[in-house]
Amino acid sequence: MSSEEIGLSRRGLPNQFVDGLQVLHPDKKLIGRALTLQLMPVRADIAEVDAAEWKAAGNQRPRDHQTALNMLQPGDVFVADVGGSVASGGVIGDNLAFYIKTNSAGFVIDGAIRDLDGIAPFVDLPGYYRGATPPAIHNVMVTGINIPVRIGAATVMPGDVVFGDREGVSFIPPHMVQGIVDEAQITHLHDDWTKMKFEQGKGKYVSTDIYSRPSDPALIKEYEDYLKEKLGPKAYDDYVKRRGQRQ
Amino acid sequence: MSSEEIGLSRRGLPNQFVDGLQVLHPDKKLIGRALTLQLMPVRADIAEVDAAEWKAAGNQRPRDHQTALNMLQPGDVFVADVGGSVASGGVIGDNLAFYIKTNSAGFVIDGAIRDLDGIAPFVDLPGYYRGATPPAIHNVMVTGINIPVRIGAATVMPGDVVFGDREGVSFIPPHMVQGIVDEAQITHLHDDWTKMKFEQGKGKYVSTDIYSRPSDPALIKEYEDYLKEKLGPKAYDDYVKRRGQRQ
Amino acid sequence: MSSEEIGLSRRGLPNQFVDGLQVLHPDKKLIGRALTLQLMPVRADIAEVDAAEWKAAGNQRPRDHQTALNMLQPGDVFVADVGGSVASGGVIGDNLAFYIKTNSAGFVIDGAIRDLDGIAPFVDLPGYYRGATPPAIHNVMVTGINIPVRIGAATVMPGDVVFGDREGVSFIPPHMVQGIVDEAQITHLHDDWTKMKFEQGKGKYVSTDIYSRPSDPALIKEYEDYLKEKLGPKAYDDYVKRRGQRQ
Amino acid sequence: MSSEEIGLSRRGLPNQFVDGLQVLHPDKKLIGRALTLQLMPVRADIAEVDAAEWKAAGNQRPRDHQTALNMLQPGDVFVADVGGSVASGGVIGDNLAFYIKTNSAGFVIDGAIRDLDGIAPFVDLPGYYRGATPPAIHNVMVTGINIPVRIGAATVMPGDVVFGDREGVSFIPPHMVQGIVDEAQITHLHDDWTKMKFEQGKGKYVSTDIYSRPSDPALIKEYEDYLKEKLGPKAYDDYVKRRGQRQ
Amino acid sequence: MSSEEIGLSRRGLPNQFVDGLQVLHPDKKLIGRALTLQLMPVRADIAEVDAAEWKAAGNQRPRDHQTALNMLQPGDVFVADVGGSVASGGVIGDNLAFYIKTNSAGFVIDGAIRDLDGIAPFVDLPGYYRGATPPAIHNVMVTGINIPVRIGAATVMPGDVVFGDREGVSFIPPHMVQGIVDEAQITHLHDDWTKMKFEQGKGKYVSTDIYSRPSDPALIKEYEDYLKEKLGPKAYDDYVKRRGQRQ
Amino acid sequence: MSSEEIGLSRRGLPNQFVDGLQVLHPDKKLIGRALTLQLMPVRADIAEVDAAEWKAAGNQRPRDHQTALNMLQPGDVFVADVGGSVASGGVIGDNLAFYIKTNSAGFVIDGAIRDLDGIAPFVDLPGYYRGATPPAIHNVMVTGINIPVRIGAATVMPGDVVFGDREGVSFIPPHMVQGIVDEAQITHLHDDWTKMKFEQGKGKYVSTDIYSRPSDPALIKEYEDYLKEKLGPKAYDDYVKRRGQRQ
Repeated sequence: MSSEEIGLSRRGLPNQFVDGLQVLHPDKKLIGRALTLQLMPVRADIAEVDAAEWKAAGNQRPRDHQTALNMLQPGDVFVADVGGSVASGGVIGDNLAFYIKTNSAGFVIDGAIRDLDGIAPFVDLPGYYRGATPPAIHNVMVTGINIPVRIGAATVMPGDVVFGDREGVSFIPPHMVQGIVDEAQITHLHDDWTKMKFEQGKGKYVSTDIYSRPSDPALIKEYEDYLKEKLGPKAYDDYVKRRGQRQ
Repeated sequence: MSSEEIGLSRRGLPNQFVDGLQVLHPDKKLIGRALTLQLMPVRADIAEVDAAEWKAAGNQRPRDHQTALNMLQPGDVFVADVGGSVASGGVIGDNLAFYIKTNSAGFVIDGAIRDLDGIAPFVDLPGYYRGATPPAIHNVMVTGINIPVRIGAATVMPGDVVFGDREGVSFIPPHMVQGIVDEAQITHLHDDWTKMKFEQGKGKYVSTDIYSRPSDPALIKEYEDYLKEKLGPKAYDDYVKRRGQRQ
Repeated sequence: MSSEEIGLSRRGLPNQFVDGLQVLHPDKKLIGRALTLQLMPVRADIAEVDAAEWKAAGNQRPRDHQTALNMLQPGDVFVADVGGSVASGGVIGDNLAFYIKTNSAGFVIDGAIRDLDGIAPFVDLPGYYRGATPPAIHNVMVTGINIPVRIGAATVMPGDVVFGDREGVSFIPPHMVQGIVDEAQITHLHDDWTKMKFEQGKGKYVSTDIYSRPSDPALIKEYEDYLKEKLGPKAYDDYVKRRGQRQ
Repeated sequence: MSSEEIGLSRRGLPNQFVDGLQVLHPDKKLIGRALTLQLMPVRADIAEVDAAEWKAAGNQRPRDHQTALNMLQPGDVFVADVGGSVASGGVIGDNLAFYIKTNSAGFVIDGAIRDLDGIAPFVDLPGYYRGATPPAIHNVMVTGINIPVRIGAATVMPGDVVFGDREGVSFIPPHMVQGIVDEAQITHLHDDWTKMKFEQGKGKYVSTDIYSRPSDPALIKEYEDYLKEKLGPKAYDDYVKRRGQRQ
Repeated sequence: MSSEEIGLSRRGLPNQFVDGLQVLHPDKKLIGRALTLQLMPVRADIAEVDAAEWKAAGNQRPRDHQTALNMLQPGDVFVADVGGSVASGGVIGDNLAFYIKTNSAGFVIDGAIRDLDGIAPFVDLPGYYRGATPPAIHNVMVTGINIPVRIGAATVMPGDVVFGDREGVSFIPPHMVQGIVDEAQITHLHDDWTKMKFEQGKGKYVSTDIYSRPSDPALIKEYEDYLKEKLGPKAYDDYVKRRGQRQ
Repeated sequence: MSSEEIGLSRRGLPNQFVDGLQVLHPDKKLIGRALTLQLMPVRADIAEVDAAEWKAAGNQRPRDHQTALNMLQPGDVFVADVGGSVASGGVIGDNLAFYIKTNSAGFVIDGAIRDLDGIAPFVDLPGYYRGATPPAIHNVMVTGINIPVRIGAATVMPGDVVFGDREGVSFIPPHMVQGIVDEAQITHLHDDWTKMKFEQGKGKYVSTDIYSRPSDPALIKEYEDYLKEKLGPKAYDDYVKRRGQRQ
């Protein structure tokens, strides 16, 4: 599956893909559930009241970004909205990146990480971030954990399925995942067949003979037979039905 | 009073000043109480659930940016966080700008306005915005009214005192306003005296003879006498006491 | 009429408005017919062949930006696509700006002008440009006059109606102008009535009572009566018919 | 050969090198003939007329970006001017990238590609692009095939020789290619000798003893002997003659 | 005189014009002699050594930006190189702007000013700056006074003649000023005549009939007669001689 | 050691780290002593005087960037301040990069390099630069060698210890190096232990149980024992003393 196959734009969700972030490991795909953290520029008047309430509620240590990290479960993606600020310092460095790797699926930080040199070569983890800078996170306060946040120009809900590849990150409503996976399989087969025909038809076919779909009846039949064989008759029939309903 | 006299940075609130916004009328100052609106990129799955809940709660019309505008009281400033997006269209045009002028104190929109040509020459209102563009607001959903929002790199709370001049906008915790006003009066007198001496001392004083404060005992006395006369003996004594405590 | 009232986005032409250009005189509106010029980065191999062909065709002076200026007629707008380049120098300075003022309606240059100080205070002309810089235009060649050009992210055809105000510039297909003017008149009346009601209803109406349209039957009637009186019965009936067809 | 050895700037063509594009495979060099495509922001009024004319001319399918792709021959480079727009979506994805690989030499797109994750690891093709984004190309229309186009700040003619390496892309008038290749060979030998001497002369020579050329007669002789040996006497004599004429 | 008439680019000094700075009063021209100040990001190790040396040399107060301001003489322009940094705070506010106005000719700050609202409406002074921000200058140290500095992409020497208008700022070697003034007078007369002819010749002349120079012998004579009359015979003869030598 | 372990920000030197430069080889670390070169935009009036003085002082070849390169000693880092300008061309290409590799430790150029394709795959050297472009350096003049320079927003002194990794470059006052190395060793051990515990404690510890330090007495003891063992008793005692003094 790839960002393109997910195709949130085609599915009426044009805002759910984010690019422009740095990609820690372009060869690794990120997939998991969003645990969200919102950090806003600190203001002492609010931070003090919040801290007092937090302590009065029986919490032993202050509420900060590690409060969210402590909540990570296997399969979670740590999604931190720092408003794109790199100047506020790195939310995680090598130690916390290692913690994320050990306990969850990856991270998306619309802000900075730090100690890139202690992370990139050693921590084998899919991650996305705005920039890398030595100082630790500062000048911010937690304004919410597992609330809706803005990452780039996307709205992320806690529990969203997060998918990342070298193109960027998609935030997917969970109820749409099954449909996307089904469709991605068809797209995948379609693309395999298309490339196979381009390979075979070098110098014989022009691009529109095959892509996005053939118009020659023999080629149409060949494609449908290929699909049926790869999917099996049951899944093929289901697909044909879905396709019919869309038209 | 000016952005510089407010001096939030000196008061331990380095994040509460925002520049980089367009200024509708550089000659008008904005002062009022923040009513905040948060708009995030729309996602159909969330917007539909929200709309149903909102209707079920007995509301007759959908929740949108006008829901917040309807709440404006005299003295309010309409503060809308659109994440800086101009492409999402204008939150207000000439009609709603006129409504804000008629019913409240001004606006700060981290996003677009529209119909600048119908607003700038006719609507005599202090306003700040990221850009101007013809289309109306679209592709967003309301995610909160009177919640904490991010404007530029500032955190704004509902009820903050908003002050704007041609330099930018400050968001001030209400309990600090009295102290700021007292201090601004002193700063104002200090600056009047400083300029008066520069005027009188042209070619005689260099800048450090007078500013930021004189070291010559005669000039020090002259300044203190000026302050006492302008403030009156009571206010002067209070100020001298405050000054002593800071040292 | 204003950029907002033209509303090309609402009319299925989302790409025809351009902002981000400098506005020479925000208080003057630009209206006229586009005469287009395309300048591309010069390459000696092409420029030499072009020059030879141009001369062979009987032209006495080289083809350059003044070739297009020489063609300007009253009512024309000089629209020059320089690909946004300011470094290539000013296409016009005070003399040619004066020529444009004397012979035509204004200019839109996606590139530089020069001698801003000789133009802004003296030449009373609507104009839009990317930047101002002392050197004259250089390092470019003419690749077309009265061909389709790109200005910002708009496609401009020769003969387009150009409308500019302080918000930006719209390039309008000529056959749509009459419809836009008719609609703009309605919008104008609508906005006048809306503001009048906001003025009268201060503290009594909230924004949605009046805008974008009232739901109270008495207010609806009041609005329709206002429209009919201002438009006259014939134009009002035409408008009601158009409105009916759109629904 | 490298961008630096081509040296279009030294040859009176300062505008023919483009950087700032993403490089698909930094280790692969692009070399081929430009087939150009121009896409401009769509406007319905023009697109409809164009489509009708195109159909009337006997074309069965609409004119779009694949019309240009269909024309690719072995050795061609697909050069698409989208005005730098990434928001308009990807001109090619994995299927069409594969088609380009199968049928031609590579691509330069001043706009977006899509499905980077389906292209980068699998399609072994030199390519340059502005950004990657999931949606397919939209909101544009074809305004020309094999016409002069602007890529970055370069003017590209159909038939130009396109050369790309990790530094960027050069667009070379075909009649200059032979001269560039001859010169590049000399530069290459010069650089090999220079580095050899730096290696041998570590701690003995400073940079100006060797580069850009030696002044010591013995070193000059050594260099000339090296050149003569590597080039052979005939080519060396030709080069010495060319060098003499330049001086 | 204007930036365009100074024409440093034409005179072999292509780097001496700077744009992109904010212009305090577009209607006021700046002219004076550069007094330069260089501020670099502070580093405690250097600042401490510098401060000790400065004190040991008998200076009573620390070396800071006011040390340079204290040196201003009538006719001086305060030119401060802060490397473009606005985040370092305002080098001058309302008091020091007033001091500059009282004692010298204006300022060019490649960094911030503060208290724009206390300066713009009250201090009638030509000034150029990168941005305006409330905090005072901090996080920098003086690394030189009256040394060569970089402003934008220009190299400024102490003693340069500084000329500013709404287009930007030029830094002129003093020995070139007389020649520029002479030439600017000719340009001015040329432009007056050109505009006069465009005015008179509306609908009769195209732009190239008059500009940049006429080819019709009668018009050439008319122009030369005009020049001679305005300059007087002596100055005209000198100019004709200069013109001859350039050809 | 990494940028994060150096931690100049924590040590009262917040301006000594630079990011935003291109990294030639992310896997190679740069370490050496700064030899600084300052290049400013050329102005003929100054360059001619400088050249004459330089020649009169007995120098045989002109003062240019190679004058600085000639001074490089083993262990030096070539640090060139070109004011961030890429348009001025490449300060070094493949030959001079090879010279730097042969004779010194690496380079940091706040400007361009050229012939990236001749450097990146062949020259195994740590280097940092703003951009790559084919033309050679031009339009600049040397204004100083081994003087303080600005690189990004850092102030660099000749003799500074330069440290670079994939995160960016730090410029370190030499007297601080020993302290940094001592501290870095502790940080390294701390991070090794932290990651070991995260590995062992997967699903058992949350992040704050271990990081930044444990609060559980048994874990504290375990950490101290680990430290003592790794450092040896003498170094451990020294560290405990230093730690005590800081508190």
